[in-house]
Amino acid sequence: MPDIHATRRSALRHELQEAGLDAHLVTDLLNIRYLTGFTGSNAALLVHAGGDEGTLFCTDGRYTAQAGTQVPDLELVVERASAPDLARRAGAAAERYRTTGFESQHVSVEQHDSLGAAAAGVELRRAPGIVERLRLVKDASEVEAIRTACAAADRALADLIGAGGIRPGRTELEVARDLENRMLDHGSTGAAFTSIVAAGAHSAIPHHRPTSTVLAAGDLVKLDFGATVDGYHSDMTRTFVLGEPAHWQRELYELVARAQRAGTEAVRPGAEVAGVDGTARAVIAGAGHAEHFAHGLGHGIGLQVHEAPSLAKTGLGTLAAGMAVTVEPGVYLAGRGGVRIEDTLIVRDGTPELLTLTSKELVAL
Amino acid sequence: MPDIHATRRSALRHELQEAGLDAHLVTDLLNIRYLTGFTGSNAALLVHAGGDEGTLFCTDGRYTAQAGTQVPDLELVVERASAPDLARRAGAAAERYRTTGFESQHVSVEQHDSLGAAAAGVELRRAPGIVERLRLVKDASEVEAIRTACAAADRALADLIGAGGIRPGRTELEVARDLENRMLDHGSTGAAFTSIVAAGAHSAIPHHRPTSTVLAAGDLVKLDFGATVDGYHSDMTRTFVLGEPAHWQRELYELVARAQRAGTEAVRPGAEVAGVDGTARAVIAGAGHAEHFAHGLGHGIGLQVHEAPSLAKTGLGTLAAGMAVTVEPGVYLAGRGGVRIEDTLIVRDGTPELLTLTSKELVAL
Repeated sequence: MPDIHATRRSALRHELQEAGLDAHLVTDLLNIRYLTGFTGSNAALLVHAGGDEGTLFCTDGRYTAQAGTQVPDLELVVERASAPDLARRAGAAAERYRTTGFESQHVSVEQHDSLGAAAAGVELRRAPGIVERLRLVKDASEVEAIRTACAAADRALADLIGAGGIRPGRTELEVARDLENRMLDHGSTGAAFTSIVAAGAHSAIPHHRPTSTVLAAGDLVKLDFGATVDGYHSDMTRTFVLGEPAHWQRELYELVARAQRAGTEAVRPGAEVAGVDGTARAVIAGAGHAEHFAHGLGHGIGLQVHEAPSLAKTGLGTLAAGMAVTVEPGVYLAGRGGVRIEDTLIVRDGTPELLTLTSKELVAL
Repeated sequence: MPDIHATRRSALRHELQEAGLDAHLVTDLLNIRYLTGFTGSNAALLVHAGGDEGTLFCTDGRYTAQAGTQVPDLELVVERASAPDLARRAGAAAERYRTTGFESQHVSVEQHDSLGAAAAGVELRRAPGIVERLRLVKDASEVEAIRTACAAADRALADLIGAGGIRPGRTELEVARDLENRMLDHGSTGAAFTSIVAAGAHSAIPHHRPTSTVLAAGDLVKLDFGATVDGYHSDMTRTFVLGEPAHWQRELYELVARAQRAGTEAVRPGAEVAGVDGTARAVIAGAGHAEHFAHGLGHGIGLQVHEAPSLAKTGLGTLAAGMAVTVEPGVYLAGRGGVRIEDTLIVRDGTPELLTLTSKELVAL
């Protein structure tokens, strides 16, 4: 059975043949990781449309041993200037690499010059987003990594709550650090992004960074955080109340929860991403809070925390089974407080699969 | 007194005038942070050579409040597609922005197209590395941030050792996490990079990532780690022995320490970077270990952990007072163990200023 990276390269080769390319020069490190499993900080990959025999993997001397372990099935080139070196090799065998694609959405104007000079005799053709399009639908091993990351975040939050870690008197920074350490306890290799812990009026700032502000009774406390497992991310937001919820807090919470359910129910294969956003947005607009929900509904998630598709008004395209997305409406009342509720989901035929399992009932701590 | 960011923009304007540019479109987020103080994740900056009056700062709606606080002195544009929007505004006032530079080392081939289309009537001219060249020599506030980051790392390591944290029976991952938590205790906002804790044979892998391998008596244990303060980084490596050092370990350690001293002594204004590398490398080669030191001697450090200048065989240019660099020779004996010793330094007239103050004597734990 071919390993998962060989299977992905095979899918890429199909795309190359469709696009009339002899080969594709992959320079984005996440795309290289996706296609080979390599996790180092310098690499380039020249995938030949004909097969792995003409495919070359290049990294520098720091990673020779690592490449031997992670990429045993491809011809290894050890060279510091990895992309220009593979371009040069394509140029030296121009009859085999006559039309070679490059990642024009990643390659800078200056890099493009050096690749072109190195690959004399080869037509370097723009081929933006080919690998990213393959990455849209997750395979079983990717879903498993995202699921494990979501579980680490769920468990960390349960531990934090169980230990009374979200309480008046602690600072946002203390809570964030406690939460991140508990994710490490549960197998995360690092926070997926700077964890958001936002108390009181700060909860109305969508992307607040934790400060030394002290949590106080009566505060809404918004936590937006994720774990990383095998390079894949989770993303979850929950909002709590410290003490008995005020009427407006309960109302706000129920509104966002309804929008989140509506958005989740709209997540299905074939749905327009802008329509999914619109479904949740209509719930919030219907309550007169349209202008208090100023960001998109969600985003794809995988090797990047934010990747395609974008579930937003301006998003293009439709969902497909196997995509991993977040659904995260929020309503933010400046100076008072805000609520956001976010899950990570896998698009499935019928109902999406929920990976972040922490309850979405309003919890008073 | 103008604030530091205004001073930096003024220095940039001088460069623009020298280069015959009416303006410069800055799209790299670190360069934008350097020139404005803005720390958000979406921004563009159009610096006019004539003054801050023609200078525009653009970010999206998530960051309106933050931009008001961090960038109060520039005209704010709120727009999601920040760089194309500023290009469009340049195009709409083409007589003022006739020749506008762009960061061709960062802007992708695809982005370049959209900027060109948006800025119709403006000559978008390649201007790679202008801001990076300004960033080479650190100003007082930058040195202070790096110094504070180095102090956090020094204190964290002292605490770790004081608590007996580097001992047989612990895993590399446990030691790394303990160390990173202690850096947070001392004011770091996050690890500068994935901390390296490499025990025994792993110490011979230059860029080893911590595993669940257990530290054992007799091991060399290499720690390479850094803190982050105000976006600036520190970088330090120390190598310890668990128990009484064997003869070969002591010999290896003394060799690397000698090379590190030689390299440090060569760090002075006007020194060719390749020559500094060569000075330290000669010490190691003289002991017959040339092939066991397979990486460069060091690198610049600041808003990036690795930035210019590169202290390496293939490095170009000379040092100048105020640059921040690392000096980090290592000798790695595959299967047995390796030693690296690294400091962060500021190039000064005469002797460089040492910022990582932890002892470099061989310490047996």
